[in-house]
Amino acid sequence: MPDPRFEVWRARADAALAAALPDPDASPQRLHAAMRHAVLLGGKRMRPLLVYASGAVFETDDAVLDAPATAIELIHAYSLVHDDLPAMDDDALRRGQPTVHVAFDEATAILAGDALQSLAFQVLAGTRVPDGARVALLRTLALASGAGGMCGGQALDLAATGNGATVSIDELERLHMMKTGVLIRAAVRMGGLSGAADSAAMKSLDRYASALGLAFQIRDDILDIEGDSSTLGKTAGKDVAQAKATFPALIGMDASRARLHELSEAMNDALAPVGERADALRALGRLAVERDR
Amino acid sequence: MPDPRFEVWRARADAALAAALPDPDASPQRLHAAMRHAVLLGGKRMRPLLVYASGAVFETDDAVLDAPATAIELIHAYSLVHDDLPAMDDDALRRGQPTVHVAFDEATAILAGDALQSLAFQVLAGTRVPDGARVALLRTLALASGAGGMCGGQALDLAATGNGATVSIDELERLHMMKTGVLIRAAVRMGGLSGAADSAAMKSLDRYASALGLAFQIRDDILDIEGDSSTLGKTAGKDVAQAKATFPALIGMDASRARLHELSEAMNDALAPVGERADALRALGRLAVERDR
Repeated sequence: MPDPRFEVWRARADAALAAALPDPDASPQRLHAAMRHAVLLGGKRMRPLLVYASGAVFETDDAVLDAPATAIELIHAYSLVHDDLPAMDDDALRRGQPTVHVAFDEATAILAGDALQSLAFQVLAGTRVPDGARVALLRTLALASGAGGMCGGQALDLAATGNGATVSIDELERLHMMKTGVLIRAAVRMGGLSGAADSAAMKSLDRYASALGLAFQIRDDILDIEGDSSTLGKTAGKDVAQAKATFPALIGMDASRARLHELSEAMNDALAPVGERADALRALGRLAVERDR
Repeated sequence: MPDPRFEVWRARADAALAAALPDPDASPQRLHAAMRHAVLLGGKRMRPLLVYASGAVFETDDAVLDAPATAIELIHAYSLVHDDLPAMDDDALRRGQPTVHVAFDEATAILAGDALQSLAFQVLAGTRVPDGARVALLRTLALASGAGGMCGGQALDLAATGNGATVSIDELERLHMMKTGVLIRAAVRMGGLSGAADSAAMKSLDRYASALGLAFQIRDDILDIEGDSSTLGKTAGKDVAQAKATFPALIGMDASRARLHELSEAMNDALAPVGERADALRALGRLAVERDR
């Protein structure tokens, strides 16, 4: 059974996101509505949960963690809006809802994503920590979001999709680490940077987060094949249809499951020295590996 | 004749931009190449010049100003990449070169823009000022870039384009202030925030920047009608073809020129109390109003 704190943290993140997003009744209304659509209509809030769970290791107040939790979810949400665009993955369904360019239009979707990225840094600049920690948070998020992280991973993904492109398993791991893993590591790191983290524990958490990032993406690849669109809230089977590089496509389903199991063990090993302070992170690791959406 | 410091500052900005952008030989090469294409192939560097000129008022070292000058130009460059996309203004020519989606592809252009925005905040987080000033710089840039600034102005512009949309002159001024003016004000403000700015001078500079932002956009509107594509480095006559809301369309060419003259006076009035320390800003004001590209 999941950690009872998860529901509390999800509610905090939802409230903080709603408060950070611009007023839907203020001009420009269409942009504001598109931004809210992208963020507020569901989502697992995995990255905010990681911020709170990582902060809990160092007994940091949840109220301090609201800003980094919000910021990282805004980055994630903007990336989904842009990934779903016709020129990218061309997807019409996300979190069980029409994607932003379908519900609004392409130009509004591009702008909404852009504005969500700016908002993430704006929110993060207001984190209730000393200025030095704020700068560290801002730098961490910027590095994780850009060409050396999420955007770079998405570019590698484009290059590895269709047209008979072939990638090795090492290349696929790098692609996934950049596309998904770096932001997940940033979430865990930002939880630590928001409080009095000691460097030994941070090293453990970083090892955990590296394994989690890859596990998360392998589970995504498996769900694209085995899941159904209504549970996923997004179109299943897209990876195969688009000839995407995925773990099941490259090494088969059994080996993918075995790799997932290995990564679970690696997460537990990494967190062992941290003790029960890391229970919420352990539970999130299990959730990422066992989830069906 | 232009201030001799302009060429020095342009060269500084170009060098700082080239150094901040990712290595074109490193993976993902296509993304990196697209980012460099977007930033390095020309541009007036008006916003970096404003950062240096504003910093010069307070005798701030140019070396300290390199980071904010770079960051604001990266935001400007990313906005051009996204504005030129087929779903937005659909433009094939920019700074005399093929736009990013033409030279590369649409997906790469979307990602390159996204990664340039992240890079702006990454660079700014490294400004050589105390942490408190860094946070103020980061917050200023985030606020100016998002839904309450540049992205919001672009959304208003979309709403005001074509389909028999009508806007009042007040609405057009608000649109232009958000789309262009807020980032120009941010450039001037960031120059001050990077050094020992006194609040009286900052108020003068802010009044100057507000007038400059609007003047800059009115001159743009006039050049779209009177300029030619080869001098402009972008397609002339697009505003009329797309039935954009512009000053000449709304109040006519003579009244647009008169408004530009008024704004020139307002810039000079605003800077009068600052004295000759503001000479570079004065020269930039003249440049913005008299430029032919």
